Amino acid sequence: MSGSLTFKQLEKAHQGHQFDWTQLLENVRFDDQGLIPAIAQQYDSLEVLMMAWMNRQALLETLQTQRVCYWSRSRQAYWRKGEESGQIQRLKELRFDCDGDAILLLVDQTGPACHSGRKSCFYTAIQGDHAQILTNPIISPEKLYPK
Amino acid sequence: MSGSLTFKQLEKAHQGHQFDWTQLLENVRFDDQGLIPAIAQQYDSLEVLMMAWMNRQALLETLQTQRVCYWSRSRQAYWRKGEESGQIQRLKELRFDCDGDAILLLVDQTGPACHSGRKSCFYTAIQGDHAQILTNPIISPEKLYPK
Repeated sequence: MSGSLTFKQLEKAHQGHQFDWTQLLENVRFDDQGLIPAIAQQYDSLEVLMMAWMNRQALLETLQTQRVCYWSRSRQAYWRKGEESGQIQRLKELRFDCDGDAILLLVDQTGPACHSGRKSCFYTAIQGDHAQILTNPIISPEKLYPK
Repeated sequence: MSGSLTFKQLEKAHQGHQFDWTQLLENVRFDDQGLIPAIAQQYDSLEVLMMAWMNRQALLETLQTQRVCYWSRSRQAYWRKGEESGQIQRLKELRFDCDGDAILLLVDQTGPACHSGRKSCFYTAIQGDHAQILTNPIISPEKLYPK
């Protein structure tokens, strides 16, 4: 491990090349609010489940605990996915994109990822002139978030 | 078609429910720069290819032409994917997430999505303490962007 590695330098790296990941950390591009978008994809079915945001600490915690932690912009608080609903995301692998400003999380999602009770948040599809609802909840939201 | 439909209202809609999609348009949540994140996923392999941004006009153009158009934040210009490299994205289906602040594009990507020549931009994986490069380019960047 010696200093910093830029994402630009990695463009020329070959498949299988390994390095100490902390060399990349200072080059991860958080936005002016300190956040980076993170896409969660179910690792086996490859279904895209949701998109949320991480700050630096949420990223580090996720890697350390292997349980996904986001930063909630609406609540301005750490959001350990499933802490209320029980529907957690176990991390299988975390990937950065080519310029280090987006994250792909391969996860094992317990139950639904969506607060509506659906597996994925992306259930509204535009098909030509109309939109269509693609899925039903697999758990009712009332069961997910009892009073 | 009658007025506006909120994403909140759609939470209770059933699978197969159809409606005029323009009822949703005013409730799509662009950020304070007028942008919304858009994830591109290869429609058949389900590989996540990239994440970029759209403004309202890029979204409308993409739906109209069925060819993906982003807004480039670095160039502050419309970015018709493939206009320089020839590696276009044909839209198969566009989906909104449950609160209307993220888009999932199911696309048919010609060649690589990544400017590095790789199929996907997400080729740097964190695995424990080390990072690993997952893939090689399928086309050399020099061929993608000849001078």
